[in-house]
Amino acid sequence: MLTLDRIYLASRVLRDVCRTTDMIKASRINPNCNVFLKTENLQVTGSFKIRGSYFKISQLSEEERAKGVIACSAGNHAQGVALAATKNGIHSVICLPDGAPISKVEATKRYGAEVCLVKGVYDDAYNKALELKEEKGYTFIHPFDDLDVIAGQGTIGLEILDQLPDVDVVVVPVGGGGLISGVAYTIKQLKPSCRVYGVQASGAPSMVKSLADGKIETLDSVNTVADGIKVKTPGENTFDICSKYVDGVVTISDDETALAILTLIETQKLIAEGAGAVPVAAVMNGKIPDIEGKNVCCLVSGGNIDVNILSKVIERGLKMSGRTSEITIALSDKPGQLADVSAIIAENGANVVNVKYDATDLDMNITDCYLRIGMETRNYEHLAQVKRALTDAGYNVT
Amino acid sequence: MLTLDRIYLASRVLRDVCRTTDMIKASRINPNCNVFLKTENLQVTGSFKIRGSYFKISQLSEEERAKGVIACSAGNHAQGVALAATKNGIHSVICLPDGAPISKVEATKRYGAEVCLVKGVYDDAYNKALELKEEKGYTFIHPFDDLDVIAGQGTIGLEILDQLPDVDVVVVPVGGGGLISGVAYTIKQLKPSCRVYGVQASGAPSMVKSLADGKIETLDSVNTVADGIKVKTPGENTFDICSKYVDGVVTISDDETALAILTLIETQKLIAEGAGAVPVAAVMNGKIPDIEGKNVCCLVSGGNIDVNILSKVIERGLKMSGRTSEITIALSDKPGQLADVSAIIAENGANVVNVKYDATDLDMNITDCYLRIGMETRNYEHLAQVKRALTDAGYNVT
Repeated sequence: MLTLDRIYLASRVLRDVCRTTDMIKASRINPNCNVFLKTENLQVTGSFKIRGSYFKISQLSEEERAKGVIACSAGNHAQGVALAATKNGIHSVICLPDGAPISKVEATKRYGAEVCLVKGVYDDAYNKALELKEEKGYTFIHPFDDLDVIAGQGTIGLEILDQLPDVDVVVVPVGGGGLISGVAYTIKQLKPSCRVYGVQASGAPSMVKSLADGKIETLDSVNTVADGIKVKTPGENTFDICSKYVDGVVTISDDETALAILTLIETQKLIAEGAGAVPVAAVMNGKIPDIEGKNVCCLVSGGNIDVNILSKVIERGLKMSGRTSEITIALSDKPGQLADVSAIIAENGANVVNVKYDATDLDMNITDCYLRIGMETRNYEHLAQVKRALTDAGYNVT
Repeated sequence: MLTLDRIYLASRVLRDVCRTTDMIKASRINPNCNVFLKTENLQVTGSFKIRGSYFKISQLSEEERAKGVIACSAGNHAQGVALAATKNGIHSVICLPDGAPISKVEATKRYGAEVCLVKGVYDDAYNKALELKEEKGYTFIHPFDDLDVIAGQGTIGLEILDQLPDVDVVVVPVGGGGLISGVAYTIKQLKPSCRVYGVQASGAPSMVKSLADGKIETLDSVNTVADGIKVKTPGENTFDICSKYVDGVVTISDDETALAILTLIETQKLIAEGAGAVPVAAVMNGKIPDIEGKNVCCLVSGGNIDVNILSKVIERGLKMSGRTSEITIALSDKPGQLADVSAIIAENGANVVNVKYDATDLDMNITDCYLRIGMETRNYEHLAQVKRALTDAGYNVT
């Protein structure tokens, strides 16, 4: 059973291992309430996961420590377990599917784990981990469905109440449910009036569905840019705790997540991974009920996003907010039109960043062409203004 | 004259306005010393500039306050002055060159300033600001060469000594010299054994040149991605203070800055602008003398980087570190070669992200072609390994 005692013990154990990450006011996330960010993306290893895995490993018996630990993950859990084991002087093995990104494999090795690449997907790596556990006597460190792991994550709840005693609402990402279980339990014990909401990706709403049905449900497939919360089945402990202590779980789309990541970069200078940004996305998009004038804490759970994906997310976010756009203009293939179109765009204060000229489409008359123009604009209204000016000048903007 | 009293007063005045930004350990910047980041990129307005401009404005007389203030800047100083004036209930006018990025203009307006767009470049906007100052009686808020502005920036020195009493070395970006003047003065008064170094962009080394020549020098032109420190002439006050209290000023290249920005994103989840990243670049590249085993504080001065530039910087940083690369292979134009080349690349653990096939170059035989392959690799050695494998298989990698 989870107890507050256990969470206070975890807090003590983690004192010299984890950072008490800063609580930062973020006034531009939602103008109708006071938004604060609990910045676990600035935690050691770039995510909150070190809290749960370190506390779990610190509580192992001498015999278990001697044999070592094993986990299966291509993400933050792998790095948390690797570093926690290394700091405790324990051998760790992490099974990853062989398609895992180079950067994740390197990070896991750097924290001192033995990496076992398994041919196939996550489930194959998971089965391999269970096999090795049996064969070698390793302790399996579950990413979320373990009371000591949950107690470790619960320490964030203590810090939120210390740093923001007047908090009214806490918004937490939900994958398997380990983080929100720890945080919601802690907060409801110490300040029952504070509401706690979870956020899932609309492509992976396993906890939403399970809570709605009153029993644990497994999704057939999950798909989201927020890979840290891409989980098919909630845990048994986490489902129980969420049923009791969580006020609601909402979902948001990947596009909303991309825009939240971009907003955190531009307004807060913080990198969040997809899973870390979903609470911000939920608050930006009015998904959390009754927050007007309230003190709302968004738990930014992690920042481990692959930089190649980050570039794509930034692009997507810019498009989503009308800040970059591509317009296509059908032209007759005659001179001077590019100059004319460029002038109209410039006069309206937009900035051309690329131009493609396509005269080879088989659907067109042989004398016609398309002009595709990439532009920077201020927002959707500005984009509409530019389009209107082109249409008014007789151009066919499609 | 600058005094410690003045800096303590500034610290008191700024207490409810500025954040005491976090000091974060950053173990992967340089393995030979203990690097800490003073995260002024997480300051209100995304930069330290609010400290100096707020303190300056808070000290104006009733008459000066009634008339309002004016400044000339397309960057952080504009936002600092705008917010500081608004918070003090004072009217502010900011002159910007009309080519300033849309995002900067919007931010300045959002903080409550009247924006005056001036046709031309920075110097034109500056002259316009002086003109308006005369005409309307505004107080001109200098971005760096003002003792109250310097005292405001000096409060960062107090915080560094509070947060990291054992600090041995502090590394600070240098443009006009306001920030380093405040920080170096404060630190040398309170802990003379602590060394303070400045960092300039190699394309804008105005303080380096001035200190070397023992007098203020003006550069003919300046060019760097770090626009926050793109300054042609140091100030008189700042030159004096730097001459007395700074242990040295080093320079770094834009490529080194780009890689530092990427490193801060990947390892610390922090967005720094070019100027904010130069101390990290200097420490990464061994530009600061005698830091082995020392506690080194890098002042990350700001995070206001345009996201479009950020994307380019990330790309540049990935190329610089051998993480993405493009190779060109000369082929005879016959079937099966793309499959063969792809297989060799995959066997060597690299990841193809794009392929261009070019058979139209006029320099080639009509039956030949170039294959250009974009790849993700781990680092330069890995890239070399892939190239070697292709060469060993008989391909002509150019």
